[in-house]
Amino acid sequence: MELDDAINARRSIRKFKKGATIPKEDYLAMIEAGMYAPSARNGRPWRFAVIESRKLMDEIKKRHPYAKMLESASGLIVVLASPGGDESSSFFQQDAAACTENILLKATDLGYGTVWCGLYPIKERASILSDILGMPEIPVTMIAIGIPDENPLRRGVFEPERITFL
Amino acid sequence: MELDDAINARRSIRKFKKGATIPKEDYLAMIEAGMYAPSARNGRPWRFAVIESRKLMDEIKKRHPYAKMLESASGLIVVLASPGGDESSSFFQQDAAACTENILLKATDLGYGTVWCGLYPIKERASILSDILGMPEIPVTMIAIGIPDENPLRRGVFEPERITFL
Repeated sequence: MELDDAINARRSIRKFKKGATIPKEDYLAMIEAGMYAPSARNGRPWRFAVIESRKLMDEIKKRHPYAKMLESASGLIVVLASPGGDESSSFFQQDAAACTENILLKATDLGYGTVWCGLYPIKERASILSDILGMPEIPVTMIAIGIPDENPLRRGVFEPERITFL
Repeated sequence: MELDDAINARRSIRKFKKGATIPKEDYLAMIEAGMYAPSARNGRPWRFAVIESRKLMDEIKKRHPYAKMLESASGLIVVLASPGGDESSSFFQQDAAACTENILLKATDLGYGTVWCGLYPIKERASILSDILGMPEIPVTMIAIGIPDENPLRRGVFEPERITFL
């Protein structure tokens, strides 16, 4: 898919076709795209959990206030980050976000729908995932994935008045 | 350009062909791609400054410790964000970062080289841009842009051992 088409076609999808399975190689392709995002001082602070377990998704849905879409999602990618010791650690949120955006675009390219759910820096939400995953890194974002079962309009808007040339 | 090619070809470029000019429509196309990134609760907290003034770029180069590449860059896009009042404000850094990543990919598609320079949350660095721009929003990232005059290897690496399936 052309870059422009992926950027234009990406939507936040909250309703997926139930029971669909995503091949492991597709998860790997999405996360590979994520790993090619830039990171502060090339620190690549990320780690990933792919949750396909219905039991774990149900538990997250029960505890996270905005995770209803997990009802129909096929899976969930959690992007965690481990801030390093030097100043690049200030940027781990942004590193995880750039990585997440690449994952969303690659998912669009592969025909999947996604929605980005924020975790860190809302500590209670990050804690839910830390509890469930038992991983030491900070869960920064989570991405619900599946075959779209809705077709919303694009909510991004080009607003040139927000641009100042100097 | 195919999405995969844009993701794979993107590099952090710090040496540009001096004296090149970027047409305004290309800046607009890059920032339009940025504006189609997702944002928490569709808050679209971003604002943009495009700096083409050599004088302003020299001033930033003088004051920011990692802005030497402005010596040869054609321009600089600053992505600012204005955190809203509700909880989506927690995510303004991540919103700005997803937007920045789209800008980098679109710049690659258009044949430009870029490098992402971190500002916020390192307050002294954000302050430099706030001083110079006189804009009330928080400068989160800045992107130096130009025609590449170096051809570094990709520094992103696919590390499947960082992925846990559950």
